[in-house]
This record gives sequence, C-alpha cells and structure tokens, in this order.
Amino acid sequence: MPDRRVIGVDMGGTKLLAGAVDGRLSVHHRLQRPLTGLDQPKLLDTVTEAVQEAIDNAGGEVDAVGFGIPCTFDQRTGTAVLAINLDMKDLAFGAIMSERLGVSCYVDNDANMAALAELRAGVATGVNDALMLTIGTGIGGGLILNGALYRGSIGAGAELGHMVIQADGPRCQGNCPNRGCVESLASGTALEREARRVADQQPDSALGQAFSAGRAPLGPLVTELAHDGDPVAREVLELIGTRLGVAFSSYTNMFNPELIIVGGGVMAAGDLLLEPARRELAKRALPPARDTVQVVAARFGFEAGMIGAAALALEGDSEVRA
Amino acid sequence: MPDRRVIGVDMGGTKLLAGAVDGRLSVHHRLQRPLTGLDQPKLLDTVTEAVQEAIDNAGGEVDAVGFGIPCTFDQRTGTAVLAINLDMKDLAFGAIMSERLGVSCYVDNDANMAALAELRAGVATGVNDALMLTIGTGIGGGLILNGALYRGSIGAGAELGHMVIQADGPRCQGNCPNRGCVESLASGTALEREARRVADQQPDSALGQAFSAGRAPLGPLVTELAHDGDPVAREVLELIGTRLGVAFSSYTNMFNPELIIVGGGVMAAGDLLLEPARRELAKRALPPARDTVQVVAARFGFEAGMIGAAALALEGDSEVRA
Repeated sequence: MPDRRVIGVDMGGTKLLAGAVDGRLSVHHRLQRPLTGLDQPKLLDTVTEAVQEAIDNAGGEVDAVGFGIPCTFDQRTGTAVLAINLDMKDLAFGAIMSERLGVSCYVDNDANMAALAELRAGVATGVNDALMLTIGTGIGGGLILNGALYRGSIGAGAELGHMVIQADGPRCQGNCPNRGCVESLASGTALEREARRVADQQPDSALGQAFSAGRAPLGPLVTELAHDGDPVAREVLELIGTRLGVAFSSYTNMFNPELIIVGGGVMAAGDLLLEPARRELAKRALPPARDTVQVVAARFGFEAGMIGAAALALEGDSEVRA
Repeated sequence: MPDRRVIGVDMGGTKLLAGAVDGRLSVHHRLQRPLTGLDQPKLLDTVTEAVQEAIDNAGGEVDAVGFGIPCTFDQRTGTAVLAINLDMKDLAFGAIMSERLGVSCYVDNDANMAALAELRAGVATGVNDALMLTIGTGIGGGLILNGALYRGSIGAGAELGHMVIQADGPRCQGNCPNRGCVESLASGTALEREARRVADQQPDSALGQAFSAGRAPLGPLVTELAHDGDPVAREVLELIGTRLGVAFSSYTNMFNPELIIVGGGVMAAGDLLLEPARRELAKRALPPARDTVQVVAARFGFEAGMIGAAALALEGDSEVRA
C-alpha cells in the first residue's frame, strides 16, 4: 500500500507553489504557477490544474489538500476578505476546490500556515506559546497559543503586522486603513523606503553608489552591502530592526511567548536585523517575560506556507472547512 | 449542611478588599483593610487577619481563598514580580497564605481576576474571545481566549496596558521601562496630565476655573464637568478615548475578539470615553474583525477583582498554585 500523501498549496500574490507532502512533512514533488492578473474563473482553473498535477505525481494516495492564502478569513461565510493581490472576493474557495478536486480541502491564512510549519517541524516544535512574523513586502502574523494556532472569534485574528507602534506614523499599505502599523514601518517595503532615503543623504556610501548605479532590487542589495560591512546599509537594518524590537516588546508584554519567530525574505539579513530588535526588546519589555522570550529565525524559507498548508491537510483542521 | 463559601481577596496598592462569596458569586460579607506602607511581615499579618475574619463571618464552610494582586507572576518560582505598591518581592505568597490559613489558596493578577468576573458573571458570560482593560492609575489587562484566561508561557502575559502605541511617546510609569505604552497615554494618570495642560491653556473654561479653585481629584472632576456639558472637559475625554481607540485597533487586528471590555475608575466617564474610542477603532482596524468587535463597559465596578478572585478559588484554578 502506498504512503498517504497530501498536497500543500501556498498562493502568493504573484505565484502558486504546490507540493506533494508525506506524513513526516517531507516534500516529494514540487511545482509553481504564475497567478498575476488572473480573473476569478482563470484563477480557479489554474489552481485546479496545478493541484491535479501535484496529485498525479504525488507517489501515494492523496486524500486532502491544504491552501495558504494571503488574506483574512470570515468563518461565518467561509469566504476570503482582503486578499490583496488575488481576485478572491466573495469566493467560497475551499468549497469550490473540494467540489472540483473530489478530496477534502482546507483553507487558512498563509502566515498562519508558516507558523504551523514551524510548530510541527521547525523551531517551535514542542513549544506552547510562540509568535511568528513573515516579513516580506508586508508582514504576516501567526499566533501559537497553548500549543495550537489561535485565529480569533471569526478567524480574522493574528494580524501581528497590523499592530500600531506609532499612532501618528505613515499610512499603512494595501487595504489597511491604519497608520503606523509595524507593517508600515518595518516591512520589506519600509526597508526599501529607508534605504532610498539614506542613499540620497549619503550618495558616496557603498549603498548610495550602488543605488545611483541603478542596482536592484533594493532590499537584497541593502542586505548584501550590510553583510559586506557597509556602515550605511547596516544603519538601515539597525533602524528597521529597532522598530521590530518596539513591536516585540508589546508582543512580549501581551503574549509572554517562549519564542518570537521571524521568517520571510527580509530574514536574509539574519542577525543584522534581529540583534537590534533583541536590544530594543530588552530595553522596553517588562520582566520576567522579557528575560525568557527568545527571538529566532524561522527554519523554513520560501516553502514555509506550502509545508504548513500540508500540515493543515494532514490534521484535517481548518478555519474554513470545505 | 451550610452552603459552600470561598473568600475572594483583591489586594490593591493601597487597600485590601475581601468578601465571602457563594457558588453563584453572590457576596455575603465584605471587609476592607489599608495596606499602604506595610513591610512584608506586617503585610502578611494584615492579610491573614483579614481573611480569617472573612472566614469566620462567611456563613458557610470555607475551603478555598483566591487572591488578585497587582503584579506580574513568574510561574517557575511561584513568586510575584513587579508588585508596584506592595512589598511582595521574592515572596511565595500563595504558599505562605495556604500554610497560615489551612485552606487552599490561589493567586493571580488582579486584572486577570476582573476579566474572570466578567467571564463568569458579567458582560462576557458565554463569550469565547474577549479583552478586558481595567483603567485606573494604571491600565491592567486580562485576556479571555477560547473561553479561558490566557496567561502566557510563565504567567506574565496579558499586560495589555503595556502595548506601545507611540514608540517615541512619554516614559511609562512605575517599573515599566517602555515609552508610549497605552498606560502612559490613556490611563487615569494620563487623563489628569492632559486635564492639567488643557486647564492651563484655557483658564476661563469650566475646567480651568475648577482647576484654579483647587478642586480635586482631577479625574472625577473632568468626568463630572464633561457630563455637565463643558466642551473643554469633553475634549480631554475625547483625546484619551481616541488614544484608547488606537490601542483597540491593534487588539482587534491581533485577537479578533468578540468584546473589548473597559472597567476601572475612569469608566465613570462611560460613553464620553468609549464613543471616541469606538470611532477611532472603526477608522483604523481591518475588516471583518472591526465590524464584529463590540466595545462595552464592564459590569463589575470596584468589586470586580474580589469577585474574580472568588471565582478562581471556586474553580480551583491558579497560575500560582499554593
């Protein structure tokens, strides 16, 4: 009898990543599809075809599919709310996929799925209380409380990137109407904005020269120059890391977590970002919670959402059960 | 056979309030003791004597005592940390009380106890996810998640008043090393500070004249004048309420609660404080969580902590089991 397999699907704003995954969360077959600009019918067709291909190549019996999607959910209606770059409005996505594919489908927020991957097979294994931030263009949040994902009363919670740290700060991005959210001040987008500002102010620095020479994308460039020792690039990461540390002090005082886990593309900067965050946290948070919390890098990189979505399917758990 | 009774004890910074409480959380005997300035031995003697009097007058068999204390706890050692106005340093309070009184003693944070009172017999009855803020000199926090108190990994969580809303804001009070916490900007202390500022700026207003005439205490004075229609006093409550609304937007995005419950002395202002908070929350928080959360006044007033502590004793639940 072949092994049991599930399909984990991470639907980013620009592309889909799917994998056939076994019970130990090892990935056996991977595929990608571009999603940019698809209308709702084309989006559904593309996802159906991709998942079917993953099922056909899974190397075992597939009985469930999990999806991680960058949006908030409303459990009352089973629909996605605020999926920034995907045309998912008023779509009962899980129910439709379940009907088309003929297997159980489970749907959740992509940042929750990244947290679940860390809980089941990453740095949060065996941990009861942990927060996870996925820092890229925006900041996704996942909450592990009492050893399980916490999603809030209608499944719309854990938006850790949309906690205000500066009430009169800049307008947040996408559909967030707030000001001074962590996302508006410490996301990859904010990092690029600050890098541009510092490059303009110090055109003779390594960062300023690289910027004048038109090198891009700016986020990875800052990280590369900072790793090479450019003090100006390091200053940018220090600023963003310090702002993260302000947020970490609030999380620590409220959740008293064992771990704050940081993942996403910005984590290429590693401790150049996390060290200033740890220093600011230590200065601001209350004892004894500040003395026990650890700020760590995620284990999983770009596959975190896919692996977490597979874990969701394996467990038959869902916020929006199809 | 007489009814079962427990004793609920709320230990504020200045006084102790104890009550003999039955299984339906009705209070049968009440007493108070001043606690200001007591050293550790005198504090223990005063509490022992007060609880013994409550036991003697309980009108039933007392088998448990619950204590709510304004401090964070460290479950690893069973001791209080940061009890601002009480000499509790390194004291295994619950264990000592249990030994002295010969009954089971349960100890928890006083703001957690106020939240438990609302969950068991107040506005949060039957609610799964709710936040409670007790706003007085400081701001205490209690978290009800999945129908139970959430205390964090070592019992030091739920400090909702120590979430930053303005990273470069004023230094927080007491032993909190942070800047721009909700407590530093929207507590009773902050309200008095803003009232003093506005009274200085507008000496001819009702608030300015009352302030010049030396009327005090300032917090209740602002509330009284605002209820009477003084626009300047209302402006002060509007400012504090708006700041609370900023915090409520962050809570809503992270916890997606059904209720945000506000209690404490400052709630004498009622909707004059809560209406601006609701408006700011509606402007800033993400849908769909912002459309389902309700901001409500607590049912219990100054006895909330005592009643919650009695509920803790009745349930035999504790973060610091004696």
